[in-house]
Amino acid sequence: MKRYKKDLDHSYALGLAVVFELLKNRPDNVQEVFLHPDLVQNEHTEKLLALCRTIGINAVTDGKIFNILSPKENCFVIASFKKYECPLTPNAPHVVLVNPMNSGNLGTVMRTALGLQYNDIALIPPCADRFSPDTVRASMGAVFSLNVEVFADFAEYAKRFPKQNLYPFMLTSSTPLSQTEFKKPFSLVFGNEAHGLPDEFARIGQSVVIPLSDKIDSFNLSVAAAIAMYEAKK
Amino acid sequence: MKRYKKDLDHSYALGLAVVFELLKNRPDNVQEVFLHPDLVQNEHTEKLLALCRTIGINAVTDGKIFNILSPKENCFVIASFKKYECPLTPNAPHVVLVNPMNSGNLGTVMRTALGLQYNDIALIPPCADRFSPDTVRASMGAVFSLNVEVFADFAEYAKRFPKQNLYPFMLTSSTPLSQTEFKKPFSLVFGNEAHGLPDEFARIGQSVVIPLSDKIDSFNLSVAAAIAMYEAKK
Repeated sequence: MKRYKKDLDHSYALGLAVVFELLKNRPDNVQEVFLHPDLVQNEHTEKLLALCRTIGINAVTDGKIFNILSPKENCFVIASFKKYECPLTPNAPHVVLVNPMNSGNLGTVMRTALGLQYNDIALIPPCADRFSPDTVRASMGAVFSLNVEVFADFAEYAKRFPKQNLYPFMLTSSTPLSQTEFKKPFSLVFGNEAHGLPDEFARIGQSVVIPLSDKIDSFNLSVAAAIAMYEAKK
Repeated sequence: MKRYKKDLDHSYALGLAVVFELLKNRPDNVQEVFLHPDLVQNEHTEKLLALCRTIGINAVTDGKIFNILSPKENCFVIASFKKYECPLTPNAPHVVLVNPMNSGNLGTVMRTALGLQYNDIALIPPCADRFSPDTVRASMGAVFSLNVEVFADFAEYAKRFPKQNLYPFMLTSSTPLSQTEFKKPFSLVFGNEAHGLPDEFARIGQSVVIPLSDKIDSFNLSVAAAIAMYEAKK
C-alpha cells in the first residue's frame, strides 16, 4: 500500500460519503475497501458493507493505510479504485477548465457541475489531478458520476467537438453574463486561478465577463464557474 | 510575537496582496509590517514600502515571525493589525451566515460579496473567526473593505434590522431562486456547511432553494452564496 502519486494506475476515495459514491457509480473500478479499526458500526456502515457484498468486494479492517493516506484526518473508510477513462458526451453542455491547478477548486467545480446538471468536464493540462485523493474528496465523490476527460491541449478539445459553441470567461470581455445568449450545445471555458485565460481565447468564441466591483481582482474559480453554470442553464 | 489565537486583540495579514488591502483600507489599525529576509525588491514591494511610509508604519525585516505564522508557506510580507468593530449598514443588502465553521468558506464568501457589491456580512456564532489569518487570507483581504459584524444570535440580528426582508436559503423550500422576487432591503441567510439552516428558519421570511440535481446533497456554502448573491442583485 503506497502513498498516492499521480502516475499510479489507481487512487483512493477517503471517507464514508465519498466511498459510497464510488461504490454506487463505479463499482467495476473498485479494488479494495478498508475499514479503520476504530470504525463504529451504525446504519451507514451497515449499508456500506451490504453494498460491498452486492458488488463482490471484500471490506478489510486495516489501520495501516489510514496512517499512510490520512494520518491527521477524521476518516474511517478508504477504498482504492482503478483509474479509468470517461470520454465527454458530444452535443451536451461542457465545462472546460484550462490549467486549473488547485485540487480543491477542481473538486468543488465538479460537485457544483453535477448539482447543476453539467455532466461533462474537459481539463486542459497542466492541471490538478482529477483522480488525486484531494480532488476526489473536494468533489464529495461527484467525480464518479461525471465524465472528466483530459485533453492534450485546447486545440485537441476544439477539434474533437467542432459543434460546441465556445464561451470563454475573461475579465477583458465587454459582454456581461446577463446579456449573453448561450446557444446549445455550449462550452463554458475558464482559465487558471491566478491568470485567467490567455488573451488569444477571446477569438475562439463569444467571450463573457461576470461583472465585478473594482474592489477585487477576480472571483475564485469555483465561484465564477458556479455563477456561470447557473446562469447559462436558465 | 505569538502564534495567532482567537482571543488576542490583534491578528495578522499574510502575503503581499492581503497586506496591501489592509494598508489601503484599514491604515489606522495596522500595528507593524514584517518583511522576510529573502524578500526580493521589485515594483510591488516598492509600492508597499511607499504606502508604509505614507501611513507612518515602520517595515521591519524579521524572519522569526514567518517561522511562527507561516512556516511552510510562500509568504514574504506579514502585517499585524488591531481587531476592530464594523457595524452593518441598515437598509443595504446583507449576507447573513449562520454558523459557518470553515474559514476558507467564510473568506471566499467575503471575497465574492465584495465583488458583487454586498458590503455587509452578519455572522451568527458559533462560527469561524472573521479575523483569523486563514479567513483573512481566504478573503484575499476583502475583509478589510467589508462590514463584518458578529451577533449574539439570529434574534439579535433580526431585532437590530427590523426592516430587512429575510430570505433563508433552505433545501426544503418550494420556491426556486429564479422565481423569487427580492424586495429591498434584503438579507440572504445561509446555514452551516454540513447541516444548512434549522427548520424554524422557514418562518422568518420567504425561504428559497437553489434547485439542484438529486445526485448531490447540497452545494458548497461559498458556491450557494455566490449563486444567490449574483441572482438577487439582478
